[in-house]
Amino acid sequence: MKLLSYRYQQHEKFGPKVKKQEAVWDVQKINEHFGKFTDFPATLAEGTATGMDFVEQINKLVKLAEISDEAGTFKHEFTDIEWLSPIPRTPKNIFAIGKNYADHAKEMGGEAIDFVVFTKSPTAIVGDEATISLHTDVTSQLDYEGELAIVIGKGGKSIPERMAFDAIFGYTIGNDITARDLQKNHQQYFLGKSLAGSCPLGPYVVTKDELPNPHELTIVTKVNDEIRQNGKTSTMVYSIEQIVSKLSAVVELEPGDIILTGTPAGVGKGFEPPKFLASGDMVKVSVEGIGTLVTHIE
Amino acid sequence: MKLLSYRYQQHEKFGPKVKKQEAVWDVQKINEHFGKFTDFPATLAEGTATGMDFVEQINKLVKLAEISDEAGTFKHEFTDIEWLSPIPRTPKNIFAIGKNYADHAKEMGGEAIDFVVFTKSPTAIVGDEATISLHTDVTSQLDYEGELAIVIGKGGKSIPERMAFDAIFGYTIGNDITARDLQKNHQQYFLGKSLAGSCPLGPYVVTKDELPNPHELTIVTKVNDEIRQNGKTSTMVYSIEQIVSKLSAVVELEPGDIILTGTPAGVGKGFEPPKFLASGDMVKVSVEGIGTLVTHIE
Repeated sequence: MKLLSYRYQQHEKFGPKVKKQEAVWDVQKINEHFGKFTDFPATLAEGTATGMDFVEQINKLVKLAEISDEAGTFKHEFTDIEWLSPIPRTPKNIFAIGKNYADHAKEMGGEAIDFVVFTKSPTAIVGDEATISLHTDVTSQLDYEGELAIVIGKGGKSIPERMAFDAIFGYTIGNDITARDLQKNHQQYFLGKSLAGSCPLGPYVVTKDELPNPHELTIVTKVNDEIRQNGKTSTMVYSIEQIVSKLSAVVELEPGDIILTGTPAGVGKGFEPPKFLASGDMVKVSVEGIGTLVTHIE
Repeated sequence: MKLLSYRYQQHEKFGPKVKKQEAVWDVQKINEHFGKFTDFPATLAEGTATGMDFVEQINKLVKLAEISDEAGTFKHEFTDIEWLSPIPRTPKNIFAIGKNYADHAKEMGGEAIDFVVFTKSPTAIVGDEATISLHTDVTSQLDYEGELAIVIGKGGKSIPERMAFDAIFGYTIGNDITARDLQKNHQQYFLGKSLAGSCPLGPYVVTKDELPNPHELTIVTKVNDEIRQNGKTSTMVYSIEQIVSKLSAVVELEPGDIILTGTPAGVGKGFEPPKFLASGDMVKVSVEGIGTLVTHIE
């Protein structure tokens, strides 16, 4: 199932993509109309806590709508909605894994080292098709990093590798936008990773049952249709199971938490001379099986 | 005003310390009894958003209780409550400023450098008198760092230094407990700073009007009554105004956010040989005008 969060007529909503249509099911409206579930989650983030039970609720609501005489009134065309990040606000900072592709670690001037974890402020989250600032008041080196993102479902503490997928709800695409000068000058990455708009996420959360092998996906990042990154999740240094296990050994993972799993080679800073983002640029990050996340630079 | 959050008969509550008594006013009970405010905040974190208006509401409720015939029924003795962190859950990760006292930067083997900001997971927060794990499964170098903590009220983006105090609600005490081996091995500080229980906060939030000069406070940290840290906030590298201004230039500050302002010299790692925390230790961090934050090591 492909799930999205969106704004429709001032209301923040979520729902599954309608199959073979550029539209979303308004599952909250369906649920109210048919009075089906009293415990239906109010947000996608909340729904991740119950995982496949939540997906099952959505499936039942969609079926109710499909067999009704008014199916059309329960859908919104994509042209009528504003895309939001599938998880517009994470329960804590977004986790991000540094240097998790050996070729990217090399272009940044170092070897892949022991499991680097930093965070991005949740105030940085934006959705698909967002237009973000270049932030020229604080940086002259804004850069992109296309990444596969894990969306935590049940979560937990000290999760063994073999139980990692049990803690996960699904996957989305992230662009770990980074101010390279801030990242370098302040030593710790947090500030350079937390500018407003620097965490585009989306367009969909794909539930884990639809991506049974997340280690065989291609990640392609284009800037204005020039391919900059073309990587494979099979070349990650730490696998998804290892990331969930190593992170949860220290920090409790909670429903709706997001983990950016690292970026392959080809970031702007890796070119000679560097190719940082400029006004008017359009960045597209595509991950096989999920879709394409588009971000516009003001 | 000294405010605390606490648990009483399974309910999480907050209120002001009763003057000259070891007790807290149950302001929520007073408000319900007299039907005074329909917009009274449900938590201290929520109350910080309206700042001095919130303090004024509390003052009015306390006066109502004091002049009633049943004043005693609106207080709880400290012996009957469990202390919580004044802000049990921050809206995002706790901000922390690294190497903000030159003498501490020196003991850690480096000079004070350009404004280091890292974060701690909000799942690490505990209150006064908490007993925390040594986490011997993942670290053998657990260490303390006594700090003055800023509690954000109104918050905002790009706050100029002269407006910094307007964004602040008050101050509390923090112990930035750190696993030195994790901090070192993972390069980025986040993991080593985020173990469960590694962010004791409290006992009180003192509103900013009662601490007009937060740069003239002593910070003393004792381990089992041995003085380890004895610093002055006057020796901070970046002042409170500078911290709020520099941080908000990048990240939006929100009501209930907490900023740990850095630790003076005398952490366990700074001794030769190092004095890391051990089972049964009691750590006390005292900041002038706020009180003493006590943490027990399991």
